[in-house]
Parts: sequence; structure tokens; C-alpha cells
Amino acid sequence: MNYIFSNRVSSLKPSAIREILKHTANPEVIPFAAGNPAADAFPKEIIEKISADILESDPIGALQYSVTEGYTPLRNRLKKEMSEKNCFVYERDDLIITSGAQQANELACKVLCSDGDTLICEAPSFVGSLNAFKSYNVNLVGVELEDDGINIEKLEAALKTNNSVKLLYLIPNFQNPTGKTMSLEKRKAVLALAEKYDFIILEDDPYGDLRFSGKDIPSIKSLDTAGRVIYSRTFSKILAPGLRVGYVSAPAEIISKMIVCKQVSDVHSNIWAQQICDRFMETADMNEHLASLRKLYKAKYELMANGIKEHFSDKVRVTEPEGGLFIWADLPEGADMMTFCQKAVEKYKIAVVPGTAFMISENDKTNSFRMNFSTPTDLQITEGCRILGQLTKEL
Amino acid sequence: MNYIFSNRVSSLKPSAIREILKHTANPEVIPFAAGNPAADAFPKEIIEKISADILESDPIGALQYSVTEGYTPLRNRLKKEMSEKNCFVYERDDLIITSGAQQANELACKVLCSDGDTLICEAPSFVGSLNAFKSYNVNLVGVELEDDGINIEKLEAALKTNNSVKLLYLIPNFQNPTGKTMSLEKRKAVLALAEKYDFIILEDDPYGDLRFSGKDIPSIKSLDTAGRVIYSRTFSKILAPGLRVGYVSAPAEIISKMIVCKQVSDVHSNIWAQQICDRFMETADMNEHLASLRKLYKAKYELMANGIKEHFSDKVRVTEPEGGLFIWADLPEGADMMTFCQKAVEKYKIAVVPGTAFMISENDKTNSFRMNFSTPTDLQITEGCRILGQLTKEL
Repeated sequence: MNYIFSNRVSSLKPSAIREILKHTANPEVIPFAAGNPAADAFPKEIIEKISADILESDPIGALQYSVTEGYTPLRNRLKKEMSEKNCFVYERDDLIITSGAQQANELACKVLCSDGDTLICEAPSFVGSLNAFKSYNVNLVGVELEDDGINIEKLEAALKTNNSVKLLYLIPNFQNPTGKTMSLEKRKAVLALAEKYDFIILEDDPYGDLRFSGKDIPSIKSLDTAGRVIYSRTFSKILAPGLRVGYVSAPAEIISKMIVCKQVSDVHSNIWAQQICDRFMETADMNEHLASLRKLYKAKYELMANGIKEHFSDKVRVTEPEGGLFIWADLPEGADMMTFCQKAVEKYKIAVVPGTAFMISENDKTNSFRMNFSTPTDLQITEGCRILGQLTKEL
Repeated sequence: MNYIFSNRVSSLKPSAIREILKHTANPEVIPFAAGNPAADAFPKEIIEKISADILESDPIGALQYSVTEGYTPLRNRLKKEMSEKNCFVYERDDLIITSGAQQANELACKVLCSDGDTLICEAPSFVGSLNAFKSYNVNLVGVELEDDGINIEKLEAALKTNNSVKLLYLIPNFQNPTGKTMSLEKRKAVLALAEKYDFIILEDDPYGDLRFSGKDIPSIKSLDTAGRVIYSRTFSKILAPGLRVGYVSAPAEIISKMIVCKQVSDVHSNIWAQQICDRFMETADMNEHLASLRKLYKAKYELMANGIKEHFSDKVRVTEPEGGLFIWADLPEGADMMTFCQKAVEKYKIAVVPGTAFMISENDKTNSFRMNFSTPTDLQITEGCRILGQLTKEL
């Protein structure tokens, strides 16, 4: 049979990351391509105990249908925490639980962008979100990402030349894929532009709690007084991604539309997982847990940064993230990045993600690739940097 | 601020069921409006034990990122089971795990229907699916549902008069909201029409395992030789809805597009829940469990059917389902159904769902309402039928 698909998906391809991750199923391949939390990062025993408590004390509560908005005690707890960080305003905002931040970002696009509306993002940006946006037929426009965040002049130019700009998608902290962090000045600048050109900012902050050096910068959401920011966060990077628990704080009017769209998508998120997150926040020491994660990732980052310094060709430029999970490496001009990545995985069994995966269009040129330091073991980091380094010197 | 929403959602309203369910949060209200499995239906102890085993033996496996397609052992188990029921053809089909059947139905629409394409469904039909379809701007067309399934003549008329019909959505077994079951003859007839008019059938079968009288009728999927059926099922009604684990079997080409869209929606479904379902099928006696559910729901159905027979006005016509969770009641002509339902919940504390909730448009007229017999206790069924019966005699 010849199936005819909708115009939403006929051009969508499986994410290049997922394709490359298939190589990482091979345990011999060093996984610099993934974005998984480290195996050591999971508070296994605590979750095991909490889970047993939940299923013993109120099994029906964990197994029965629930409300789309999410588990009420968890919502209340997150509202309070976000309010203390000026990221939730009781009088104006609402907060719901989503199936990962991925769902929050998808819903934001679905409720705000009609076909052909413009959505601007950093270039490069997170491929999962880009594909979600594309699946709603938006006019996706990438704007150059500098070391301190999106290029403001080019952003304003894009705002002037594109019709019906509805959303600006940003990952201000330790961006995926570059590890770059947006300056306070630029955070204020994009808010001012949102007011001037009447659009909404979708601020995706999966890594904000994973700063291992430097000082926290206020979120855009915390600077917003006009109700122009949708702020999505997740337990994936700080507790466990398999739970699929994220959340989103935004003006109540926007959230009410997101609830309707979430309801038709999955009715509600897995209840047991929401209860696990709630009970963890209630009974475990989250600050201590986050401190241990930062220490773990700082050590892994430094191991990789030192390995790069020691072994990579001087012609390769890498970012120096102050948190998160990723380093972005630029190969020298004239080098063939795709051949480099393919050779790395096929001949030397080291998987990195070709930068093209994060471009707005796979035809956009880039000479960069993404390296992850949370997933590999320390030994894999050392060994992988040594081998990749040799490869960079052959360029 | 004045927010402007996408044309997908600006007309979408929260489901009327969810609004009425808010009344059922009041424990004094008899819940004939819900669709929840009975509290007695959950194999609590088994799930508790399985969960402890999973989290003890392989916690990282349950908590780490996984693949979009779903937990491989569960997929393989379901492929085998579906294959034995002629609902999965290894050479042609693929099968993935979804976040409930709701997500399977949403994805089917997203990948097959562009804006303005026609999707035909039974009238009345399940409101959650109808809203999902509406959120993709389809031309939603309802066709009269008779006691033995959709009216075939009217269906063919709709196929002739509507352009670009991509999907026919059917719930052949113990339909929600009516409890009606489609005859084998009509199942064959819709397949022939799919071939003649070149469309795909989305067969939603959440209740198929809950037949408590009569004989199983082959699924449309099992009769399909051309690759024209998407078959969605769920663990929600047979194990636990809070898990949010459903699955869908369809031609591999269609499934591959659904995977891409699932990936941008929630990356993957909660892994622990998928493992629970897998381990339950592996270690518990599913046939025995299903037999106990059928016995439970048969008893509850008969209690409600007898209560209706004893107390309701003769002018009220009710369906006589052979399985599932719902009875559909038609009030006599001239009665004001909405006033009846409001009076029932506000004055007599008995919640039923007004039939308008299941109409294609809320403006479509109906004199019917839906009653559920799985959620209320036996005492609530007896008492609720007595009081509702009095109300029907006042009409």
C-alpha cells in the first residue's frame, strides 16, 4: 500500500541523535553522543524505598486515573519553590506537570503557533524541540548563538523581517548542544524585544540546577513582569529521566490551553512517577542531592576539558560550560566534520553528535560536533579524549 | 495581556466529562459519570511485589532514558500475543508502546490528517478522541451509530460527499459511550469501504478483553489483509490507568511516522510502568486476572441493569452491553436531558454524563446520557438506580 501522510510529518525524519545513539547500544562504543545522567547520579535506594511506601500506603492513588494538571501535592510544592525563585506568580500564573519538559515545549508550540506562524530559536538548538516545532508546520527561524547568548541585533532583524512571530525558544543555561549560557544583559534584552514585538518567550531550563562553576543568573521568567514567559523544567536531569516528569510555569491563560492539549495527548502523566518526585522533595534533602550531582559533573567536565587540552589539536575550539552536560567543539575551517564523526564512531568506536543534528535545517553548514561528559565513565572520558585528539591532529 | 492562541486550540474547550468529574471529587456524589476501573479491580499486591523486584534488580534500567518505541521485552511479548490473535503480522506490521491508547489515537490523526482532511467517526463517540482530532483541525464528520455498529449506508454517503477522507475512527467493542458492539458483518463492510474509498481505519479497542456475555467477534484488524487498520489497545482498563501504558499495532510504515511524532511529544513513556506491565504478563496469570475482572464487571452490570429495570420509567430506553463499562440511556422525546442531568447531580448527588459531551459538536441534539457501572460501589449502584429511576418517572 502507498500511505499518504499529513503535511506535518511527511518531511520529519527520526532525530539524528537517536540514529547515532543506536551505535551506543554497542557497549564497545564510548558514549560521548548521549545526554543521559551518569549511572552514579541516581538516588536508587531512596527511590526504591519511596516507591515501596507509596504502593503500600495508597496503591489505588498511584494506579487509578488522575487529573490532567498533575498530582496536586507536587504541583503545590513546585508552585511554592518556583514562587521563591520568582518563577511563579500566584496571582497570574499556573503550573502543571508534563511528561518531561519535551511535552511542555511541544504544548507551548501547539497552543500558540498556527501553521506558518514564525518561531525563532537559537542556532544551533536542541533537536528534540526543533522537531516538535516542525511537526506543527511553523516557520522555524534560527538566529546565531554567541558565547553569551543569542545575537540580539540579528534577533531584532529576524523580528522585523518575519511575519507573525509567536514564540522565541531559548535554553539560557548551559545550552544544548553548546553548553553556552546567556548573559543577564541579553536576558533583559530579549524580554524588552518581546514587549516591543509582542511575542512569547519559551524558556527551557533542564540544566539550570547543574551549575558547577560561576554564579547563577536570574531566569528570564523571574525578570518577566508582563506575563510573556513560559518556563519549562524537568526532573529528568536531576532525578531520573525514565520517570518522564517535567513541569511548566506560565500565565494561567496559556496553561489552561496547554491542559486541554495535554488531556487529548495522554490524559495525564504517570501518577506513580509524580508521587516519587513529590515524596523525594518532601523527604530527601534535595539541596544535598543537587550538590552531589554538581560535584560529580564538575569532576567529569574537568576530566574531559583536561583531556581535550592535552590531546586535541590547537585548531579545535571548544566551549567552556559552567554547568550542564555538554561541550561544543568547532573543527578548523576546511575540515570535513561529518567524515570526522563517522570515522570516530566506525573506526575508533567513539560516538559524538554531528552539529548538523542541531541546525534548523540539516542542509545548514556547520563544522561543529557535540560531546557529552555525563554518560561516559571516567576511564572512557580519558581514553576517548586521547583517541579523538589524535583524530583532530590528522585533520 | 491579550494572548492569541493557535487556530488549533482557540475553539477547544476542556472536556465536559472532566468538568462533571469535578462533582465526583465530592465523596457524597454517586459516580455514574466516571470511567474508572473498580477499586477492587487492581492487582495491588502483585504490582507492589513486581515493582520492588524491578527497582531492586535493575534500578537504572527503570530510571534511565530509553527508546521511543518502548520497552523491548514488552513490545516483543505484545507482538507475539497480537500475532496469535491475527492482530499483528510480523512481515508487515510494527507495534509500539504509547502513553495510553489516547496517545495512540492522537498520533494516528497527527500523522495521517493534514488540516481540513476528513475524519469520520461514530456519533456519539469518545470525547477524548474527538477532542484530539479537533486539535489537528480535521473536518470531523459523525455518522449514526446503530445497535450493531455504524450505519453503513450513511457511512458510504459521507464517504461520497466529503473530500479527502483519511481516517475512520471506530470503537467496535462495547463502545464508549454507548456500550454497543459492531457486528462481524459490519466489520467486514467497513473494511471493504476502506478499500473502495482508500482510507485507513483507526480501531480503538480499550474494552475488548472485558466481555462478560456473548461471544467474541474478530477485530477489524484481524480481518485486514491490505494494511488498512491501526489497532490501539491499553492496559488502562485491565491493569491500571495511572500507569499510562497503551500500545498500537499497525503497518510498519505508519508506525515509523508515529514514532517520530511520539519522540517529539514525550521522548518515551514511563519505563517503570512498561516494565510493570511486562513483568505482570510474564509472571502473573493474565487469563485468570481477566476472568476475575469479567466476573466483577458482569456482577456490577447486572446490578445496574436490574436497578434500571426495577426503577426506571418504561419510557427510558437503555442499551444492553455484553462487556465494557458503560450503559447508554435515551430519555423519552420531549424530555430535557440537560436539566435532568443537572438536577440529578445537584439535587440528588448522582453524576451521569450528558450525551452532548459525546456529540461531534456540542450543538448536536441528543436526549441521551451515559451511565458507568465500574466505578460505583454495589450500594451506590442500587441506591443511584432507585433515585435516578424516580427522576425518570417525573419526566
